[in-house]
Amino acid sequence: MKILILGGDGFCGWPTALHLSKKGHDVTIVDNMSHRQIDVQLEVSSLTPIATMSERLSAWKKVSNKKISYIDLDIAKEYDRLLSMLKNDKPEAIIHFAEQRAAPYSMKSSKTKRYTVDNNVNATHNLLCAIVEADLDAHVVHLGTMGVYGYGWSGSAPIPEGYISVKVETPEGELSREILHPANPGSVYHMTKTLDQLMFAFYAKNDEVRVTDLHQGIVWGTQTPETILDERLINRFDYDGDYGTVLNRFLMQAAVGYPLTVHGSGGQTRAFIHIKDTVRCIEIAINNPPKRGDKPHIFNQMTEVHKVIDLAKLIGKLTGAKIDHLENPRKEADKNDLVVENRQFLALGLQPTTLSKGLMTEVEDVAKKYISRVDKTKIPSTSLWRVK
Amino acid sequence: MKILILGGDGFCGWPTALHLSKKGHDVTIVDNMSHRQIDVQLEVSSLTPIATMSERLSAWKKVSNKKISYIDLDIAKEYDRLLSMLKNDKPEAIIHFAEQRAAPYSMKSSKTKRYTVDNNVNATHNLLCAIVEADLDAHVVHLGTMGVYGYGWSGSAPIPEGYISVKVETPEGELSREILHPANPGSVYHMTKTLDQLMFAFYAKNDEVRVTDLHQGIVWGTQTPETILDERLINRFDYDGDYGTVLNRFLMQAAVGYPLTVHGSGGQTRAFIHIKDTVRCIEIAINNPPKRGDKPHIFNQMTEVHKVIDLAKLIGKLTGAKIDHLENPRKEADKNDLVVENRQFLALGLQPTTLSKGLMTEVEDVAKKYISRVDKTKIPSTSLWRVK
Repeated sequence: MKILILGGDGFCGWPTALHLSKKGHDVTIVDNMSHRQIDVQLEVSSLTPIATMSERLSAWKKVSNKKISYIDLDIAKEYDRLLSMLKNDKPEAIIHFAEQRAAPYSMKSSKTKRYTVDNNVNATHNLLCAIVEADLDAHVVHLGTMGVYGYGWSGSAPIPEGYISVKVETPEGELSREILHPANPGSVYHMTKTLDQLMFAFYAKNDEVRVTDLHQGIVWGTQTPETILDERLINRFDYDGDYGTVLNRFLMQAAVGYPLTVHGSGGQTRAFIHIKDTVRCIEIAINNPPKRGDKPHIFNQMTEVHKVIDLAKLIGKLTGAKIDHLENPRKEADKNDLVVENRQFLALGLQPTTLSKGLMTEVEDVAKKYISRVDKTKIPSTSLWRVK
Repeated sequence: MKILILGGDGFCGWPTALHLSKKGHDVTIVDNMSHRQIDVQLEVSSLTPIATMSERLSAWKKVSNKKISYIDLDIAKEYDRLLSMLKNDKPEAIIHFAEQRAAPYSMKSSKTKRYTVDNNVNATHNLLCAIVEADLDAHVVHLGTMGVYGYGWSGSAPIPEGYISVKVETPEGELSREILHPANPGSVYHMTKTLDQLMFAFYAKNDEVRVTDLHQGIVWGTQTPETILDERLINRFDYDGDYGTVLNRFLMQAAVGYPLTVHGSGGQTRAFIHIKDTVRCIEIAINNPPKRGDKPHIFNQMTEVHKVIDLAKLIGKLTGAKIDHLENPRKEADKNDLVVENRQFLALGLQPTTLSKGLMTEVEDVAKKYISRVDKTKIPSTSLWRVK
């Protein structure tokens, strides 16, 4: 299948590109290197030594004898080039990772809030608009977030996959309706994914664009069977206070002897998935496209839920790391329960990588291996949700 | 009260500025003249001869002895100037009309779709972001649209004001929840107002920005008690296929002897409000602000519902105009029923201007008076919702 991967240099995009290339698909990466540029701005770098795109692609060619193409293009800004590309390449699937994806970065300042909204909304809208203008029947697979739902909206009922059945009172009695789960985003970044949802719904209704939206949990892990084949293929590992996700930050902190930074009590329950499962989920989504005229298909892309404090304790037990409770910079409930439905991916064959199995591998093979690259001053999270 | 009116040169913005100035408020208009520039692009002009902003403001000074200030600023693009303005002027209320507001224009081409999304989303988000950065406790009054709801979602139950009560099943039994009414926009323009709603909800929650969102019906009429005081104060009257709204188009068509252009059967039921009531509603909203920490207040700003065909018949009866059924360029139900709640404005003292009373005044005093300015080639609606 001819596949475009927008944001194919990123943490999820790069291993997805390799996985789909290995499976025999004709993959083209589109990326404007925005995350590498934000790294420069924030004066941080991936714990793992990521190679340049040219090095990555030539290493992949050598290792697999497969070619991945690369186009340097900003889909939020270069509409005409995006349109030409779609008209010329006629991809059958377009995987859309091309959004600013860190909640703390999106709350850092007016500049980063505005960049996140402007970039993410225009990226998604340009893509939908160009697909319609190019008269292309491509399947859009978009990376959403579990954060569109908020937590605990319907008590102890599991968070459903995108749509929820509700009843409304009318003069003729109660009616049942299936609606998009009400949005309750916790940051400007998460908010942009709730805006994406409404744009997908409109373009699916008006223009029959085929969309699958994947509401992903927090990703952990670094390597996939493909990225591990050559060091030049290694995936990025963010440990800084903006882009580092909680579990990967703990792994690195344990390796480097830094106390595990738990925000508040750590009673926040979150959904998780290993990066190896992310790439498999994307493949499953591509192989199960919506029909024209369907409303967007929505899957919850996660495999387990854990309380943050339990993860910290688990890693503390495995490694001897201490736990440090810091004031929570986010505006969120100090604790919550969480049950999430993920039947669709399981039914389509996903076999989850469980957290208990992979944790020590990550500590030993990734965090400890690159320990000399850690800049400890970049560990604290400094973005505040509200100015005090 | 110190009031900023963003988009204060427009069809709703200008009469609002005059009304609030007359009521003794200290009014500043902010506008980038985007609608006048789109007029140039579309080669159309207002049926009424609208004066320049300088002429408008000096006429108002002469007539009322009151000063309205004007700042030429694009809030979607000039964030730093917007921020400085808020910091310096410290307005207590900010009325936000600064969005591209024609559904047909928003569906005309990729360029106009993209402009509508980029302009409207960034205008609203820049405003919210700047209020937070300026640490300003201003009340934002935003012009939304009845079009966020779609039509007939809950059978014959009236469309509630913004929020709807639903029940969800949980393991502990049924829970009641009040949610934002599910969005079902019918055009890219209407979609942007559904995106606005989610941004308001987030900034009200995270930063306690005080927001009132007014979901307005289709506005008809031209003059208000203020715009009629001097011809240089006259309000704009759009009759072209993009910006003209259905009732004003019929009035002009009747005056000029053009058949009334009904799209499809005309069975579409829509909500209406006279421009005189629009300005009163804005005043009522300003005088009844939310408290800090409230979720956005949402009012339905409309006074009557009518089927399009019934309006055409009424005007046909009054004027002798013929009716012409054209193919509907929009993707919408050919007919629908509509019941809308508007109790909040009525409870706060709004006394509706009924359609039956004002219609012939509009035909005689506005449409017939400026008949020589009509360009009949601009009457047909040419934007298609779907490329055939």
